[in-house]
Amino acid sequence: MNNVLAVDIGGTHFRVGLFDEGGRRLLVSEGDTSREDGRDWMLDEIRGRARELVEKTDRPVKACGASFGGPVDFDRQRVLSVHTPGWQNFALGEWLERTLGLPSRVDNDANCGGLGEHRYGAGRGAGSMVYVTISTGIGAGIIIGGRALRGRDNLAGELGHIPVSESGALCSCGAKGCLETFCSGNAIADRGRDWARRRPESIDRVLEISGGTPDQVTARSVVLAALEGDSVARSIVQESARWLGRALLTVIRILDPDRIVLGGGVALAGSVLLDPVRDTMREFGSPSIGYSTEIVLAELENYSPLYGAAAMALDLAGQPETGSTA
Amino acid sequence: MNNVLAVDIGGTHFRVGLFDEGGRRLLVSEGDTSREDGRDWMLDEIRGRARELVEKTDRPVKACGASFGGPVDFDRQRVLSVHTPGWQNFALGEWLERTLGLPSRVDNDANCGGLGEHRYGAGRGAGSMVYVTISTGIGAGIIIGGRALRGRDNLAGELGHIPVSESGALCSCGAKGCLETFCSGNAIADRGRDWARRRPESIDRVLEISGGTPDQVTARSVVLAALEGDSVARSIVQESARWLGRALLTVIRILDPDRIVLGGGVALAGSVLLDPVRDTMREFGSPSIGYSTEIVLAELENYSPLYGAAAMALDLAGQPETGSTA
Repeated sequence: MNNVLAVDIGGTHFRVGLFDEGGRRLLVSEGDTSREDGRDWMLDEIRGRARELVEKTDRPVKACGASFGGPVDFDRQRVLSVHTPGWQNFALGEWLERTLGLPSRVDNDANCGGLGEHRYGAGRGAGSMVYVTISTGIGAGIIIGGRALRGRDNLAGELGHIPVSESGALCSCGAKGCLETFCSGNAIADRGRDWARRRPESIDRVLEISGGTPDQVTARSVVLAALEGDSVARSIVQESARWLGRALLTVIRILDPDRIVLGGGVALAGSVLLDPVRDTMREFGSPSIGYSTEIVLAELENYSPLYGAAAMALDLAGQPETGSTA
Repeated sequence: MNNVLAVDIGGTHFRVGLFDEGGRRLLVSEGDTSREDGRDWMLDEIRGRARELVEKTDRPVKACGASFGGPVDFDRQRVLSVHTPGWQNFALGEWLERTLGLPSRVDNDANCGGLGEHRYGAGRGAGSMVYVTISTGIGAGIIIGGRALRGRDNLAGELGHIPVSESGALCSCGAKGCLETFCSGNAIADRGRDWARRRPESIDRVLEISGGTPDQVTARSVVLAALEGDSVARSIVQESARWLGRALLTVIRILDPDRIVLGGGVALAGSVLLDPVRDTMREFGSPSIGYSTEIVLAELENYSPLYGAAAMALDLAGQPETGSTA
């Protein structure tokens, strides 16, 4: 029984995990990402924690898979991210191979999340599946026949940047009218902060959860208040859900997948998000062009990309794929 | 040297063609579709013309491929179309096999058009390609690794029915805000007729080409007037092009294909359509998330689906694929 390492480098958290060849998570070491400390700090953390995990097992560790929270050039195994200083064009795959002495493979977090859910989570058995991660931004991992569809420039699944509106709202990517400006953790936090500044009396529960000041409002505090029933917080989540519903219908019209799996932090809102998503999909649905795509929540929660990284490592190690569940 | 038959059943035209094993078009027999005369009339036409073509060749005819202008259940080889009376749930594949005595295969016109352009037209050599046909409605054939992506319910590529607007405009499919209500032959004709009724003096060239009355205005007459430089006709085509540009950017964000091939009657407008499409894609594009997908016009013009039908027939006949051009 061999083991593999899995790494998940995200904008807010990072994780290193040890998995067995059945895809079972044996050990996980995780922490908060420090953006200020940059790339070298993160690499030190990964190196240190990976070595600790390897020392804790008697089994041979055969390979390493890694998920990176930003675009990755899969063929060249390099990070393409332009928003995270220090990472652009970094040969992360090569660094892992050299540092850990293991065959390694890197992909972006949406593809890894999709692979993880497809193999061990809510996507099991789906011939085609789209994993949509709604956290700070929005991304999608398209899994067809068990493999990620990457596209010409490794930019397939950039669902957060489909142009959904003529409004001039500028996205962090510099384009206008992107889905992310209306539906994402950032969009929800922005709306929450606007309400907290301009109409604080109407959103006091959000302010309370956040810590008291408008600047402290996050997507998480809006979602938590919505879960408690706060009406303005619910309306903020529902407004995002309408845009998401139309985006998911767009994905269905283009790909007609067996299943769409919703993951990422915002998806933890559950039915507060999912009910208005379904309502919107009914509202914009067609009586003559139906669909039977299932819309479900991710099962591996924050660990979808880590499981996907483990799946890549297991494929790389040439382990027999048992298909067993997490 | 064997031959195959190809059939294209469209809403306005139909065609039967004889192709050699290099995918060269040897003979084509075509006519206008009579909606009033219905399915049996069409089947008689196909049968009669197919027999005529077979009699004209000394070579053995090995198989038949058919393109149908509406949804097709590929696995069951049945037509799903609900908008063309008499065709729904018709086993067209079986009918062709029985009537022509040839192994036969049917797919929808967008997939056939995509396959045709991929093998013999503007999509040659593309690893992934999306053929977008803009005629009465809008459809897309997604070709990945040389095969059509069909989806769970054979509804992948229903690009005309992505929900692009909150406006209440109802589509022929019964849904609201579909792309087709803003960009398609029907949308262009509707806009043209509105102008012809309300401001006839501003659109006299369109009226002249159409035959004189607003009811006679078609997408074709608007496009022809736009090609001649008529300013209102150009603005109608350009307005459609803006919606199309955003839709193509949406396709790129989701699939990141090597190439997008624009076909169908409206695409014959050429640069009058393509220039504003490209402008819109620049306007909504991102400085940090680029794309290198090529946007090109179809090379096989109205014959893309017929060539695709021939490609299916050649695959079915097990002919060596020469990859030679049309």
